[in-house]
Amino acid sequence: MSSPLKEEKVFKDPVHKYIYVQDRTIWDLINTKEFQRLRRIRQLGTCFLTFHGAEHSRFSHSLGVYEVTRKIISQFERNKYEDWPSEERLLCLCAALLHDVGHGPFSHSIEKTFGTHHEDWSCRIVLGNTEINRVLREVSPTFPQQVAGVIAKTYHKEIVVSLVSSQLDADRMDYLLRDAYFTGVNYGTFDLERILRVMRPFQGHIVMKESGMHAVEDYLMSRYQMYWQIYFHPVTRSAEIVLHKVFQRAKQLFEEGYSFAFMLPPLLSLFRQSLTVQEYHMLDEALMQTVLMQWAYEKDEILSDLCSRFLNRNLFKYVSLERIEAEQIERLRETMEGLGMDPIFYLAIDFPSDLSYDVYRPGDHDEKLPILLLDNKDRLTEISLKSDIVRSISGIHMGKYHLYFPEELLLHSQRQTFAPDIRRLLGID
Amino acid sequence: MSSPLKEEKVFKDPVHKYIYVQDRTIWDLINTKEFQRLRRIRQLGTCFLTFHGAEHSRFSHSLGVYEVTRKIISQFERNKYEDWPSEERLLCLCAALLHDVGHGPFSHSIEKTFGTHHEDWSCRIVLGNTEINRVLREVSPTFPQQVAGVIAKTYHKEIVVSLVSSQLDADRMDYLLRDAYFTGVNYGTFDLERILRVMRPFQGHIVMKESGMHAVEDYLMSRYQMYWQIYFHPVTRSAEIVLHKVFQRAKQLFEEGYSFAFMLPPLLSLFRQSLTVQEYHMLDEALMQTVLMQWAYEKDEILSDLCSRFLNRNLFKYVSLERIEAEQIERLRETMEGLGMDPIFYLAIDFPSDLSYDVYRPGDHDEKLPILLLDNKDRLTEISLKSDIVRSISGIHMGKYHLYFPEELLLHSQRQTFAPDIRRLLGID
Amino acid sequence: MSSPLKEEKVFKDPVHKYIYVQDRTIWDLINTKEFQRLRRIRQLGTCFLTFHGAEHSRFSHSLGVYEVTRKIISQFERNKYEDWPSEERLLCLCAALLHDVGHGPFSHSIEKTFGTHHEDWSCRIVLGNTEINRVLREVSPTFPQQVAGVIAKTYHKEIVVSLVSSQLDADRMDYLLRDAYFTGVNYGTFDLERILRVMRPFQGHIVMKESGMHAVEDYLMSRYQMYWQIYFHPVTRSAEIVLHKVFQRAKQLFEEGYSFAFMLPPLLSLFRQSLTVQEYHMLDEALMQTVLMQWAYEKDEILSDLCSRFLNRNLFKYVSLERIEAEQIERLRETMEGLGMDPIFYLAIDFPSDLSYDVYRPGDHDEKLPILLLDNKDRLTEISLKSDIVRSISGIHMGKYHLYFPEELLLHSQRQTFAPDIRRLLGID
Amino acid sequence: MSSPLKEEKVFKDPVHKYIYVQDRTIWDLINTKEFQRLRRIRQLGTCFLTFHGAEHSRFSHSLGVYEVTRKIISQFERNKYEDWPSEERLLCLCAALLHDVGHGPFSHSIEKTFGTHHEDWSCRIVLGNTEINRVLREVSPTFPQQVAGVIAKTYHKEIVVSLVSSQLDADRMDYLLRDAYFTGVNYGTFDLERILRVMRPFQGHIVMKESGMHAVEDYLMSRYQMYWQIYFHPVTRSAEIVLHKVFQRAKQLFEEGYSFAFMLPPLLSLFRQSLTVQEYHMLDEALMQTVLMQWAYEKDEILSDLCSRFLNRNLFKYVSLERIEAEQIERLRETMEGLGMDPIFYLAIDFPSDLSYDVYRPGDHDEKLPILLLDNKDRLTEISLKSDIVRSISGIHMGKYHLYFPEELLLHSQRQTFAPDIRRLLGID
Repeated sequence: MSSPLKEEKVFKDPVHKYIYVQDRTIWDLINTKEFQRLRRIRQLGTCFLTFHGAEHSRFSHSLGVYEVTRKIISQFERNKYEDWPSEERLLCLCAALLHDVGHGPFSHSIEKTFGTHHEDWSCRIVLGNTEINRVLREVSPTFPQQVAGVIAKTYHKEIVVSLVSSQLDADRMDYLLRDAYFTGVNYGTFDLERILRVMRPFQGHIVMKESGMHAVEDYLMSRYQMYWQIYFHPVTRSAEIVLHKVFQRAKQLFEEGYSFAFMLPPLLSLFRQSLTVQEYHMLDEALMQTVLMQWAYEKDEILSDLCSRFLNRNLFKYVSLERIEAEQIERLRETMEGLGMDPIFYLAIDFPSDLSYDVYRPGDHDEKLPILLLDNKDRLTEISLKSDIVRSISGIHMGKYHLYFPEELLLHSQRQTFAPDIRRLLGID
Repeated sequence: MSSPLKEEKVFKDPVHKYIYVQDRTIWDLINTKEFQRLRRIRQLGTCFLTFHGAEHSRFSHSLGVYEVTRKIISQFERNKYEDWPSEERLLCLCAALLHDVGHGPFSHSIEKTFGTHHEDWSCRIVLGNTEINRVLREVSPTFPQQVAGVIAKTYHKEIVVSLVSSQLDADRMDYLLRDAYFTGVNYGTFDLERILRVMRPFQGHIVMKESGMHAVEDYLMSRYQMYWQIYFHPVTRSAEIVLHKVFQRAKQLFEEGYSFAFMLPPLLSLFRQSLTVQEYHMLDEALMQTVLMQWAYEKDEILSDLCSRFLNRNLFKYVSLERIEAEQIERLRETMEGLGMDPIFYLAIDFPSDLSYDVYRPGDHDEKLPILLLDNKDRLTEISLKSDIVRSISGIHMGKYHLYFPEELLLHSQRQTFAPDIRRLLGID
Repeated sequence: MSSPLKEEKVFKDPVHKYIYVQDRTIWDLINTKEFQRLRRIRQLGTCFLTFHGAEHSRFSHSLGVYEVTRKIISQFERNKYEDWPSEERLLCLCAALLHDVGHGPFSHSIEKTFGTHHEDWSCRIVLGNTEINRVLREVSPTFPQQVAGVIAKTYHKEIVVSLVSSQLDADRMDYLLRDAYFTGVNYGTFDLERILRVMRPFQGHIVMKESGMHAVEDYLMSRYQMYWQIYFHPVTRSAEIVLHKVFQRAKQLFEEGYSFAFMLPPLLSLFRQSLTVQEYHMLDEALMQTVLMQWAYEKDEILSDLCSRFLNRNLFKYVSLERIEAEQIERLRETMEGLGMDPIFYLAIDFPSDLSYDVYRPGDHDEKLPILLLDNKDRLTEISLKSDIVRSISGIHMGKYHLYFPEELLLHSQRQTFAPDIRRLLGID
Repeated sequence: MSSPLKEEKVFKDPVHKYIYVQDRTIWDLINTKEFQRLRRIRQLGTCFLTFHGAEHSRFSHSLGVYEVTRKIISQFERNKYEDWPSEERLLCLCAALLHDVGHGPFSHSIEKTFGTHHEDWSCRIVLGNTEINRVLREVSPTFPQQVAGVIAKTYHKEIVVSLVSSQLDADRMDYLLRDAYFTGVNYGTFDLERILRVMRPFQGHIVMKESGMHAVEDYLMSRYQMYWQIYFHPVTRSAEIVLHKVFQRAKQLFEEGYSFAFMLPPLLSLFRQSLTVQEYHMLDEALMQTVLMQWAYEKDEILSDLCSRFLNRNLFKYVSLERIEAEQIERLRETMEGLGMDPIFYLAIDFPSDLSYDVYRPGDHDEKLPILLLDNKDRLTEISLKSDIVRSISGIHMGKYHLYFPEELLLHSQRQTFAPDIRRLLGID
C-alpha cells in the first residue's frame, strides 16, 4: 500500500513551473539509484551538438511525464468521470515515471549497433533486483509486474496504457514542450492546459471532445515541426552516424581480438551481449564519453579519428539527394577506397523518414493508438477523418536522402580524382 | 587579421533567441577542441541535484557572454560614442568568449581541494600549445597575450576589462538570465535590453545613465535573489561538501600510498599537481563522474560511501544555526567517532557568505569595479550613494551557519547516546 | 527631407520589447492628432467580448507594423543586399505606420452598413488638410501622394507595396503576434526573428530563402489557427451581427424621419454619407459607445433593445448548420413574426469563410502577393508547390453556417408554437 | 443558495492562462450589466498614454482578482487547513469579483475634483436596485450586506477581509502581474504559484511560512519597481494633471453659469453631486472621452485647449526639483499671468509620494494589514523585522518634486521675459 506524504513535495521545473509529489511511493521511486541514474543520460542524445541548449536529462523528462499524468488524472477525479477506473491512479503514475528508466546513453546509436532495446531494460529494472523493484513491491507483490505490463503495453486495460503511450500521451506532451523549451525553439508550444481540459475517459479509451479539435491540430503541428526541425536535423543525424561508426568499429576490433588500451567491464559485457542489470546501471553517458575520450588516443586510426570527431564536433558533412543510385554510390565507395578512406566507416546514407519515429500516420503497422474525437452525441471519430490539417500531415512521407562523408573528402587536391558524376553527387561544381 | 564571415552564422539560444557570429576568428575559436570541451562541464556544478533543469554547460554560457558583449559593442558603434576604443572590438569579443575556457568539472570542490584556479588555466590554454592559441595568433602574434591580459584583468585599458569583468559585466548578465531560465525560477529576469541602452563608454569607464538607475537596481535585486535562492541553496552546498570530502579522502589515500582499483592519468597528475594542458583537456565532468562511479566500488569504505552518496543523491542533511560554539562541535565530533563515523569526512560547517561570491558590496578588498551613474551634467556617482535599495543589499552579511552530516546519524537507535546539547544542536525532538 | 533624431526614442512594447524611432518624420507623425486618434479604436473590434484581453488599440498595432518594417529594412541594409532600393526606406516606414490610420470604430459593421472603406479614409487623411499631411509634405511635396500610393497598392514598385501588404507582410506579422499576446492564446507565436533572417529582396520582390520554408509553414499555421480560433469565433461574430443590426435599424429609422432623442453631428453625416475628414476624426469608438448607451434609452424598442444587448453582452445565440434551406428559414421567419420578433433585426445567417479574410489561398481573385521561395540556384517557386502543409491549408473552404437569434426565442412557453422542423433547426431537444 | 454550474466555464486570460468559474452565482454576477460596464473603464486610467499596451480594463482585472482568490481558497481546501472558515468561500469570491465594481472612468482625477469614492460606489451598487444586488440576494437576503462589508473592510472576520485587501492580497497580486503583462515591463513577474503555496490561514489571519520569505521579498520589490516605473511615471502624472485641470475648469464654468454647447445628464449630476446609481452606470470612459472630444470645440478657450491636449496627447512638460520655494513659484505664476496663461490651469506641482499609494510602510495611518511570517514553531513576526530588503523599501520616502507646465511656456520669444531664477527653475539653458 502506498500512503500520502505528510506534506506535498515540489520540484521546481521550467516547463510545468512545479512538479507536485503527493505519494510516498513516487517520492521513494525518485530517490532510488536507478532513477537518479537518469540524470546522467541526456534526453536528446546527440542533439546538443546542434542545439546547445538541449542538455537536459531523461531525469527531468521523466518527472515531467509523471506530472502531466498526475494533472490528467486529477482532472478526471475532480470531474468525477464515471469511465475513469480510479483504482489505477498509482499504477499510471508509477508507469509514467518509470517508462524511460531503461534508457541508456545515446540510445539510438547503441541500440542500432548492439541490438538492445530500452523498453526491455525498463522492464528488467522494474522486475529485477533493484531499489525500484523493492519500492514497488511495498505497494503489493504483483505491482512490479503491473508496472512492467503498462510499460510493455501488455496491460489489460487500454485506458491505462494509452495515458502513457499513445498518439497523445503524457510522454509526448512533456517531451515536445520540454525539448522546445531547452532548445529554445517555439514550435512545441501548444496549449497543454486546454488539451487536458478536453480529455475524457470514455468506454475504456482516452478521447478528446470534438470542440477541442483545433487544439489537437495545433499539438500535432507542433510535433510535425519538432520532428523536421529538431529531431531529424541533419547535424544531429551526422553526430549519430559518427557515433554509430565508432561503435561499429569498436565491435569489429573487439571481434577481431584487438587489444584496447582502455576498456571498462560494462562495455565489455555490452560487446559480449551479456550485460547484467548491475552493469547496465554503470553504463551511463559519463562512462561513454570517458571511453570516447580515451579511445581518441587508441592506436587504431579509424577508431581514434572517429572518437575525436565526435568529441570535438568535427562531424561529417552532408549533401541532400532526391534519390540514390546504387551504381553511383558504388563508384563513390571505390573512389574513397582509392584515397585510403574506408567507406564502411566514412560514408553513410540516411533517410530520416525511414526511422521509426512516430509522425502521426494511421495505418502504419507499428501504429500507436489513434486520437478519437467525441462529439456531443457521444459518437467517436478518428481525427484525420474530421481535420484536413491532420490528414495532410498524416500523408507526408517527406524526407530527402542525405549522404554523409568527411569534409576532407572535398580537399582540393583530391577533387581531380573524381569522375564527373561523383562531383555532381557531392555537389562539387 | 580577422576577416568577416561571408555569411553571418547563428546559434539558436533559448536566452538570447539567437547568437550571431560575424567574424571568422570567433567562428574558428568556437570550433576548437578546447572550446568544445566546455560542453562537458556544467555551468552550475552540483546545482542540478537541487534544480533538475540546471544541466546547462559552460559552452552555452560562454556563447551567451560573447553575445551580450557583441550587443553592447554594436550599440556603442551604432551610436558612434567617441569614448569607445573601436579598435578593441575583436579583443573584447575573444576575451568574452574565452574567459571561462579554463573551468574544470565541479570547479569549486576541486579548486578547494587541489588549489587550482580556473583563471590561470584559461590563460594557460590561451597561451599554450593549443588550437585556441593558433587561431588567436592568426590575428597577430601578440593577440593571445592581449586576450590573456583581459582575462587576468591586467590589460591596460579598464574599459576593455570591465566589459568582461565588473559588477555589471557581460558574464554576470548572461549567467543570471541563463541560470534563471534553466532552473525555471523567474528571479533573474531583469530587462537586459534596457540596461544595454543606458550603458555608455565614458572617460575610460563603462557607466550607466542615471535615468536607468531603477533598471540597475532591478538587476542587482535579481542577483541578490539568485544568490540566496539558487547559488547558496543548502542542498547544492551539501552536494559540494560531499564532493569535496570525496576528493579530500582520495587525496589522503593517495598520499598514504593506497592502491586505487581504478585510476586515470589526468587524475593522477591532479593529485601530483603536475597537470599539463593536454591532461587538463581530458579532465572533464564525464571523466569525473566515471571516476566517482568506479570508486563507488573501491574497497576503502569512506571513499566508496561518499561516491555513492553523490551519484545517488543521498547527500548530507543540515540544520541551520545562528552561531557555532567550538566546544559543542567538539563534543559532536567525539559522539560521531564513538559511533564509528569519521567527522573529518562526515561533518561540515558551512557559512555561505564566507564564500568569495560577489553580492555587490563596495569596500570589499576583492571588490569588482563599481557601478557608476552618469547624470545629465556628466557627473559620475557610485550607485549605492544614490539608491537606497542598493545600499540596503550592499550592507547585508546575512547568512546562517549550516551544519551538515549524514541522515543516518539521526537513526533512532543512536539517539540514546546523544547528550542533551547535541540533541538540541541536531534538532532532535 | 527627414532628419535623424538627436537621440533615438523608444516605446516600451509587450510584443517587440521596444519600438525604436530614429527619424524625425516618424516621431512627428506619431504625435499628430490623427495618429493619436488610433488609441480610441480597438484593433479587434468586438473581439474583446469573447477574449477579454483583446482590448488593445490600432495605435499599438500601427507602431508594431512600423517596427517590423524597420527591422526588415535594417536587416536588408546591414547585409547590403543589392536588390533593395535603399532610397525607399522612409516611404516604407511611413506607409507601414499609416496604413491603418483610416480605420474607424468597429470597422466591419460600419463598413457593411454604410459602405465606407478604411483604405479610402487612410488615403483621404494622408492627402487631406491634416497634421499628417503637413508632416509628410516636409519630406517633399509629392511624398503624401507616394505614401497614399503604397497604402492603395498602386505604387509602381512592388517590393515597397509587398513589405506592407502581401501574404507575409509586416502588417500580418505584427497582428498575429499582437493579437495572440493580448488574447493570451499561443497559436500566433511563430519565430519572427527567423522569418526576418530568411527574407530577401530579389528582383523587385520580397522572397524567402527555401531553407526557411518550415518557419513560413509555421507562420501560416499560426494564421490558420488565429482565424478559426479568434477572428471567426462565433461569439465575436454574434457581437458584430448585433452591432450591424443596430446600425441597420438606426439607418432605417433615420430614413423614415424618426426623431432621435440623442444624435451627434458626425453620426448624422455618416447617415447622410457626407462625412468630412474633420468629422471622421471625431467618429471614434468612444463616440460610438456613447451613442449606443444613449440609444439604449430611445423609445424605438428594437433600437433600444439591440443597443442594450451589445453593451451588456447579451448577444445572440447560435446553432451550427451543415447547410441552409431557404424554405425552412422562411418558415422560421414567419414563426418569429408570429411571436412579434422582426426577423430582419433578430435573425442572421453567417458563413465565416464568405468573409473577405485572407487565409492563404492562391488563385483567389482578391489574392495578395504570393509567398515565393528562393532556392540556392536562384530559382523562385510559389510555396504551396513545395509544402504539403501549405497546400493543405490553402484548399480549405471549411466553415459551417451559423444561425444567430435571441435566446428568448427558445423560451419554453414559445416552443409549443414551433413546427418540428423549426425545432430541429434550432436544436431544441 | 448558490449551486455549482453543470459544467465549469472558462475565460481565456493572458495572465492566469484560464479563469475557472464553478459557481452559478459568480457566473450570473459576471453577466450583470454593472459588471459588464467594467469593460468600459481602463484599469490604469491615463497610463496608456505612457505605455501604449496599458489599455486593459477593470473587467479583466476583476476576473483576475477572483481567480487568485479562487486559487488561494482551493489550496486551503485541498490541504484541509483547520483555521480556514470554509463557509466563507462564496463570500470571498464575490467580494473579490466585485471590489472594484464602483470604479469610474479616470478615478483619480474625478475623485480629486468631485470628492467621489469608488469604494462607496462599489457598496452602493452591491446594495442598490441593481442586477448585482438581485443575484446576491438569491444566495441569502443578507448576502449583499456581507459582500459590502468585506469591500468596506468592516466585515467581522479579518481573514476574509485580508484575502481581498491587505499588503499581500489577491487584488495586488493580480494587478502587479497584469499591469506588468500589458505594459510589457517585466518588473512585476514574481512567482505567484510559490506565494500561494506558502500562504496559510492561521488564527484568524492570512500568514506566510517563513521559508517563503524570499518570495515575498521578491513580490514587494516588484511592487516597488512597478510604482516607480509605471504608476508614478511623470508622463502618466502629467496626463492626470491635465485631466484634473479639465474637470476643475468645467466645474468652475458650471458654477459660474457658463452655458456648455455639449452636456450630458450624468455629467450634470456629477457637477451637482447628485448622481444616482443609474446615472453612475452611464458614466463610463466612453462618455468621458466623448465629452472631452466635444468640449475641444467649446468656446471657452481654456477648457477647449485642455481637452485637445489630453486627446491629442499634447501634455504638460515637467522639470524635477529637489525642493520647492514658495516665493519662486509665486514669481513664476506672475510671469505666466504676464504671458496670458492662467497658472491655476497651466501650472502644477506634483510630489508622487504624497499620493495615497501603498508602498509597504508599516506605521502609516491608513496602513494595510501587515505581512506576518510564521516560523516552524508557530511564532508570527512582521516581515520587516526579518528582512533587510523589506526594511529598506519600507523606509523610503523617495520622490522628487515635479513642476508641470505647457511646453509653449518655453518658446524662444518668451524666454526673454524670464528672470534668471525662473530660467533656472524651468531648466532653460
